[in-house]
Amino acid sequence: MPKIVDHGARRAELARAMWRVVYRDGVGAATVRSIAAEAGWSPSALRHYFATQTELLVFAMEHVQAEAAERIAADDRTGGPREVAQRILEQLLPLDRQRVREAEVWLLLAARAQTDPAARTRMADADDGIRRAAEFAVALLTGQPAADPEAVARLHALLDGLALHALLYPERMPPARARELLGAHLDTLVAS
Amino acid sequence: MPKIVDHGARRAELARAMWRVVYRDGVGAATVRSIAAEAGWSPSALRHYFATQTELLVFAMEHVQAEAAERIAADDRTGGPREVAQRILEQLLPLDRQRVREAEVWLLLAARAQTDPAARTRMADADDGIRRAAEFAVALLTGQPAADPEAVARLHALLDGLALHALLYPERMPPARARELLGAHLDTLVAS
Repeated sequence: MPKIVDHGARRAELARAMWRVVYRDGVGAATVRSIAAEAGWSPSALRHYFATQTELLVFAMEHVQAEAAERIAADDRTGGPREVAQRILEQLLPLDRQRVREAEVWLLLAARAQTDPAARTRMADADDGIRRAAEFAVALLTGQPAADPEAVARLHALLDGLALHALLYPERMPPARARELLGAHLDTLVAS
Repeated sequence: MPKIVDHGARRAELARAMWRVVYRDGVGAATVRSIAAEAGWSPSALRHYFATQTELLVFAMEHVQAEAAERIAADDRTGGPREVAQRILEQLLPLDRQRVREAEVWLLLAARAQTDPAARTRMADADDGIRRAAEFAVALLTGQPAADPEAVARLHALLDGLALHALLYPERMPPARARELLGAHLDTLVAS
């Protein structure tokens, strides 16, 4: 029998190992070596799948996007527009350990995107997802099916700025503060 | 005569060489090797001043902060509050090559700050400067000497989010668009 290697399944196995390392030790700890150890692989076997640190980060970001999209899809949309919008957008802020780890990946990949085209493509894709969430929120809050592009762009910038501040300066921007500031901005969007 | 080495002057000389490399080729090109070549030093002499890439970035960020502070101080404050606030805050957005390079340093150092305490300290200091500019703008626009902390925090997050978007996705957020979105946010702060 020829040896059957399921490429997709092996990548998924690696993704899980990588995420365990990131979740436990932070994104700075996610190296080819540490992920290989976590998965019980040799570093060289892992390098067959991910040649560079950026490829690992791009893969981690795919995982981050899938997790966030799943949480947003799982929201039951109960409550008023203001409440739903806040809940959906909070999925994109680093308000607990899972989301802090997600934001760490996002920020590292953002820095790489300045010089690496693969990082850039992945970041632009993630950015599309965040903008869609902002569009959804603006449409919901204003009661207009076509969300005002300027309101969307401002909410999108505010969200990413809050994410950055909550991630880098948690003592200045603790979760409750980030929630409050997001809420204050959403209040300005509610149809009067 | 003993050899007199003016440490400060040599660091300033290196800062200028570093900035020439960053300005010409982008922050990704600013390595110990390339900066040493630009300054006409040996890499090992440069490493005497900056042992790591993060030390170089921290130094570059000091330069970025000094340049931005100088531009803000040089503003003549002519025009109405709305106009002055917009002009001051635009100094902190990547709207031309100089400011794009500054934002590149800022974003790279932000990513390092997740794992490096020296990067973190420098970033927190830069963040203070940005918050002070936001405070100035809010106080000016609302006519209240004590700027509302919530309005300041939202403007600060919006500014950093716009900077991130303009830097990473210039095709989605060209300078004119970033200016327009900042202006739209400032309009909401003007005392009615």
